[in-house]
Amino acid sequence: MARYSPSIQQLIVQLSELPGIGKKSAQRMAFHILAMEDEKARALTESIDNARKLVKRCSVCQNLTDSDPCYVCSDGMRDKTTVMVVETPQDVSTFERMHEYKGLYHVLHGVFDPLKHKSIGDTTITQLVSRLSSHSEIKEVIVATNQTAEGNATALYLARLIAPSGIKVTRLASGLPMGSDIEYADDLTLASALRGRVDLTEN
Amino acid sequence: MARYSPSIQQLIVQLSELPGIGKKSAQRMAFHILAMEDEKARALTESIDNARKLVKRCSVCQNLTDSDPCYVCSDGMRDKTTVMVVETPQDVSTFERMHEYKGLYHVLHGVFDPLKHKSIGDTTITQLVSRLSSHSEIKEVIVATNQTAEGNATALYLARLIAPSGIKVTRLASGLPMGSDIEYADDLTLASALRGRVDLTEN
Repeated sequence: MARYSPSIQQLIVQLSELPGIGKKSAQRMAFHILAMEDEKARALTESIDNARKLVKRCSVCQNLTDSDPCYVCSDGMRDKTTVMVVETPQDVSTFERMHEYKGLYHVLHGVFDPLKHKSIGDTTITQLVSRLSSHSEIKEVIVATNQTAEGNATALYLARLIAPSGIKVTRLASGLPMGSDIEYADDLTLASALRGRVDLTEN
Repeated sequence: MARYSPSIQQLIVQLSELPGIGKKSAQRMAFHILAMEDEKARALTESIDNARKLVKRCSVCQNLTDSDPCYVCSDGMRDKTTVMVVETPQDVSTFERMHEYKGLYHVLHGVFDPLKHKSIGDTTITQLVSRLSSHSEIKEVIVATNQTAEGNATALYLARLIAPSGIKVTRLASGLPMGSDIEYADDLTLASALRGRVDLTEN
């Protein structure tokens, strides 16, 4: 282990606990932070404190936001008949970047994951159910959880939970990515693309 | 650009200014920080504030330290006749990890770099010169700057500057790394290894 003075050592330890930051990166970041101008360093710690103070969950869609309701839920131009269920706030941002989807969101903040002891109570499914029952204008729920075992299990659970209310539940298509070569596709993706094949003669 | 609430956006911007942190990593770090327990988040910002408050340059070797003189300079067991000149505090840590070098250090905090407008004044060469003249026990200066154009120029400059005082100035050997294949060595390294060849029959 490299030897640094206690406060540098402590800074490196704290930084290396951030996701994706190894020991080398943490060292580099620590010395960068030590060399920063006062104003810059203050901006960094203030942005951490500020975000942690201001950010809360939107009372409607559970996305992380400074203002409640969030900018999507308070946008009068959005299609209020459709709700897309995603796992994380990052997913909302990804769909918004696409500028294609005009409906609302619901952020689960997780999925079922027996291995990590994550159950329904660790997601915002309860809030989703009460939202669906109190907003009769919602006609479709698009489940956009990840294409993983956990994401799929959560999607199936949601479909069974919501179906009795008469609301349509759909799932994002799975299959070959655009521009991809069949030669390099993995077996699961190929099987899923085959099962989900679409009829080109249908019109 | 992804859309997040202002305080999340601000946090991502600040984090992405750290070295080696791209937009994606900054996003991941930001959401991790938002999800941290209060205590953990406080430990992070406090470690930044603390390090910036406590860390100063050692008045002897210019290494970054909490206490002055630093742990190397205040260690009575070190060989006080030898000073190794390095570019950064990280370099000191690298040599200390090796447990082979028992002398003292001098941290330049930079090298000459005309392209980045770095001259002698941006290094601690002045402090090195006055240290050498006031500590007559120093017999050798080992220049351990990087094997770059800037590192080499700095080494040559130091050799010319110090030589008149009668102190021996040496430079770390350059050549093929241990365990390396000649087939994969670059031309500059090969040429340097050839120029610096050692006589195996000499004894």
